[in-house]
Amino acid sequence: MNEGVEWGMHTCVNLSWMPGEALPAKKLAAFYELPTAYLNKQLQALTRAGILSSTSGPKGGFQLARPTDRITLLDIVVAIDGPDEAFRCTEILKAGPGADPREDYRTTCLISQAMRQAELVYRRELAARTIADIVADVERQFPRSPESTRAWFANLKS
Amino acid sequence: MNEGVEWGMHTCVNLSWMPGEALPAKKLAAFYELPTAYLNKQLQALTRAGILSSTSGPKGGFQLARPTDRITLLDIVVAIDGPDEAFRCTEILKAGPGADPREDYRTTCLISQAMRQAELVYRRELAARTIADIVADVERQFPRSPESTRAWFANLKS
Repeated sequence: MNEGVEWGMHTCVNLSWMPGEALPAKKLAAFYELPTAYLNKQLQALTRAGILSSTSGPKGGFQLARPTDRITLLDIVVAIDGPDEAFRCTEILKAGPGADPREDYRTTCLISQAMRQAELVYRRELAARTIADIVADVERQFPRSPESTRAWFANLKS
Repeated sequence: MNEGVEWGMHTCVNLSWMPGEALPAKKLAAFYELPTAYLNKQLQALTRAGILSSTSGPKGGFQLARPTDRITLLDIVVAIDGPDEAFRCTEILKAGPGADPREDYRTTCLISQAMRQAELVYRRELAARTIADIVADVERQFPRSPESTRAWFANLKS
């Protein structure tokens, strides 16, 4: 999985504490000492997926495009890592003896079905966790996080 | 995920119908028109994991090393694709403001925890399905599979 998934999730949590404020990729990258250009690529992907919105100009940058309880971990994984499942059925049964050339073995092959079922529970789990859940957990365990994040960005020279 | 996972699972199902018979990589590859050398690499990985056993010599080849109800889909995924989880926490919190250099953020980071939890349900699902389950499903839906597989290998010129 692309490491941008980790970056994207942490950045969304940070942005949740900066409502109404657009932050440029450079500042968001500085927070974790990440490479700006590469983080920017992930932020663009999140923007295309409707998770972030982006504005240009001297005061421009990225902010959350929708409430954190409508951004799931799966949304971020799919936006950055793409929609493909880990197991890709290449229908090797089609090359096997007695295969039916018209059959869609991605649907009927029992190995393909079992692998898809596992992937489904994984995605269901990721779809059930939102950035709002993560933010709530963080704030419960580390109550100073919102304030210290805001202070850090405020003190950052642009 | 390595496509060898698909090949390995189908090959284990085929081998379940050939008890006591060692089949060389060349024959196993011919069944699905797979490249022999690359399938052989996967079969070696399954052998190292104790899923297959291999014998050399003119009558040598691969066979299942243990009963199909003791070979899970997770065993095959880990043997061929390695033990790493899809999401790799690189502890970006460590580079963030106020980080504790002694902390293991792979354990304490709430994003890392949520991603690991999803991975856990995925692996639990794969660990709950065995090759015996798949074989039983195949035999229920395609009762002629064991016989036709045995006939195909018997007719194959060595």
